[in-house]
Amino acid sequence: MKTKTFQPGDLVKIHTKSKTWEGHALESHSSEIIFLKLKSGYNIGIREGEILDVKLIEKSKETKKEKVELKKDGKLRNVAMIITGGTISSRLDSKTGGVISTDAEEILNIAPEIKEICNITKIEKPFMKFSEDMSFSDWKKLAETCERLLNDDEIDGIIITHGTDFLHYTASALSFLIKNLNKPIALTYSQRSIDRASTDAALNLICSAKYATSDIAEVALVGHKNTDDEICLAMPGTKVRKMHTSRRDTFKVVSDGPIAEINSDKIKILKTFNARSKNKLELDIKFEEKVALVQIYPGQNPAILDFYEKEGYKGIILEVAGIGQVPTQDAKFNWLPKIKKAIQNGMIICATAQTIYGRLNPNIYSAGRDLEKTGIIFLEDMLSETALIKLGWVLGHKKWDAKEKMLENISNEFNKKSLS
Amino acid sequence: MKTKTFQPGDLVKIHTKSKTWEGHALESHSSEIIFLKLKSGYNIGIREGEILDVKLIEKSKETKKEKVELKKDGKLRNVAMIITGGTISSRLDSKTGGVISTDAEEILNIAPEIKEICNITKIEKPFMKFSEDMSFSDWKKLAETCERLLNDDEIDGIIITHGTDFLHYTASALSFLIKNLNKPIALTYSQRSIDRASTDAALNLICSAKYATSDIAEVALVGHKNTDDEICLAMPGTKVRKMHTSRRDTFKVVSDGPIAEINSDKIKILKTFNARSKNKLELDIKFEEKVALVQIYPGQNPAILDFYEKEGYKGIILEVAGIGQVPTQDAKFNWLPKIKKAIQNGMIICATAQTIYGRLNPNIYSAGRDLEKTGIIFLEDMLSETALIKLGWVLGHKKWDAKEKMLENISNEFNKKSLS
Repeated sequence: MKTKTFQPGDLVKIHTKSKTWEGHALESHSSEIIFLKLKSGYNIGIREGEILDVKLIEKSKETKKEKVELKKDGKLRNVAMIITGGTISSRLDSKTGGVISTDAEEILNIAPEIKEICNITKIEKPFMKFSEDMSFSDWKKLAETCERLLNDDEIDGIIITHGTDFLHYTASALSFLIKNLNKPIALTYSQRSIDRASTDAALNLICSAKYATSDIAEVALVGHKNTDDEICLAMPGTKVRKMHTSRRDTFKVVSDGPIAEINSDKIKILKTFNARSKNKLELDIKFEEKVALVQIYPGQNPAILDFYEKEGYKGIILEVAGIGQVPTQDAKFNWLPKIKKAIQNGMIICATAQTIYGRLNPNIYSAGRDLEKTGIIFLEDMLSETALIKLGWVLGHKKWDAKEKMLENISNEFNKKSLS
Repeated sequence: MKTKTFQPGDLVKIHTKSKTWEGHALESHSSEIIFLKLKSGYNIGIREGEILDVKLIEKSKETKKEKVELKKDGKLRNVAMIITGGTISSRLDSKTGGVISTDAEEILNIAPEIKEICNITKIEKPFMKFSEDMSFSDWKKLAETCERLLNDDEIDGIIITHGTDFLHYTASALSFLIKNLNKPIALTYSQRSIDRASTDAALNLICSAKYATSDIAEVALVGHKNTDDEICLAMPGTKVRKMHTSRRDTFKVVSDGPIAEINSDKIKILKTFNARSKNKLELDIKFEEKVALVQIYPGQNPAILDFYEKEGYKGIILEVAGIGQVPTQDAKFNWLPKIKKAIQNGMIICATAQTIYGRLNPNIYSAGRDLEKTGIIFLEDMLSETALIKLGWVLGHKKWDAKEKMLENISNEFNKKSLS
């Protein structure tokens, strides 16, 4: 067997009929597949049978599974890592075929390049959860962990590893709960678990390390720009949505643009950003959890508003039709009187676009103007998910004027530049 | 004033500092703007002050506002038009600045090129509604109108003009309610009202006429491919979603590809299609209106299932997290027991992806397998909106096995080819 000539960690060149690959050999659980970590950070699997020739370029200098040593190189910036769970903290359970949780060492070992970019001087695990199980108490814990770490002069930036499903909610939550952000916060993920040849974790972690050592003091979601596994985007925390069940470039910036494009060599800045400073980071952690997100569709029953009112809900994000309408013609499904009544009873109701992309405008159709008269707050191009988080945060502050605050651009949740 | 040298309908060449435009002059309500209909079908507005020179190429042969004459040219196919309302049937109300309904003549006059493509031999108006006000009774009327028209040997295809907001629901509904479709049905729209210089109606109508005279016997949504105003796509009725509040290319094919690309000259077929035939079209109009669409988000209250149960709902499409999970860790928001109980009580619950793009797979995570054990039906890559319509239609048939029918690929609502 040709592959017996090298060990995991060795730098090798593998020739197949169709292509030549160069990279570090990875441990393989299969006798038929060779896993190789390419320079791009991407791992590939090559079938043993396809291999024509293997050339050993350099023997491994590392032990097979290195213990994480939190060393400091004086020339590099110091980054803290917060591990919260999700696929990026998972590996395949060979018994069930599903994935199970793994540890910090495995995460760091998947992207040893990080050590060339920064010193990981701290690793924290405030909780271990898949993101679909997170809620306000978790965002609070995360914000408090960020505050403690970023107000420490010894820490220059943070990488948070996180599940993908509700990652955009966490990105929004941190964008509102944290005030005067002084250093970079990179939220990152993987769509494939880190022991898979196709894992996207390595590049995301490398680019997150680049981001966390940059001068961009923004909450950004850092992940694949496309499926090439070469470039990541730093996406604004309030303007990003998960748009695919499995693709590595699942997160898309919506009605806005990325902050930066990142690869293992450099960061290309794409817009004005809030810069690194000596400010003291502060928290503003008040949150009303009784907020709901309701989509309008044909035949949707407006009595749903009564349900949320009875359950004690204080606010609702209503995903309205088109550019800002609700059904009105059928008496049973006329939303206008129900919305008006709920608002009169003290509920705050805001409108977002169920098309996801684009901006609401109540002034195009008379139906939009009728809707506006109910007292609903049109949230222009704000994402529904961001709007839900912002509404919870705004309603947590009993003394605030909810409408005024919902329309104030607090963390770039409105893209004021775009009129499309 | 240079523009006084020509009349609406005249073919003119207009030179501005930056560009030269050639097209037919349109009626203008403004003394400062000249509207021109370009060869591409696109209408533009040019500010009077920018015009350097106007050259008259050909005087108009038409009267300013032609009455619709339903003439027949023996060489052309005969198309029926069904007008239902929406922006494509609207023009600006100069008093309010909003839009008001208009008539068939105005729609046809915006795209006189249609007469070169087909004979519009019939125009029907089963109802006039914005699409957000439509529901099952409207889809039923539309399906019945299609049946009557397409089972008439004198009609070769149908164009339905329709509001955009819930157009994709109608496209789905017709895909399920109509059996043995024998001729093309084009559903089309505009995002800007037809008296606006920027209206997208003309190209959409021209391409719909091309589609309705083609040999593709499918329900397709025909509309702009991009913002260029040169090409339309014929999009499969069950795989399309409105994705932007205002862009003319708002409709996107999701997890599938278009049936054809169309411009005013030709149709480029992009996939296998059901072809025109002498079959008798049949209807299968049974529908359970008590179906709901529920999105899961952080803190979403699973008691919402109780609400729909109490209201007598028979089925729910649940937009689950990621590739197929629901929150479970927090006892208050553990969806599993609630889903299980609702299913045991006779509710049919199906899972779709809230990411919109991609395919569900319950076998990746143990959370997915736990969810599958509740009896929920995983709808793979089916769009939530399509799933809602299909569920209503399936549950309308009391004798059908709901799970079996929901998983049967009836109108290409599953893309069996794609595994991405």
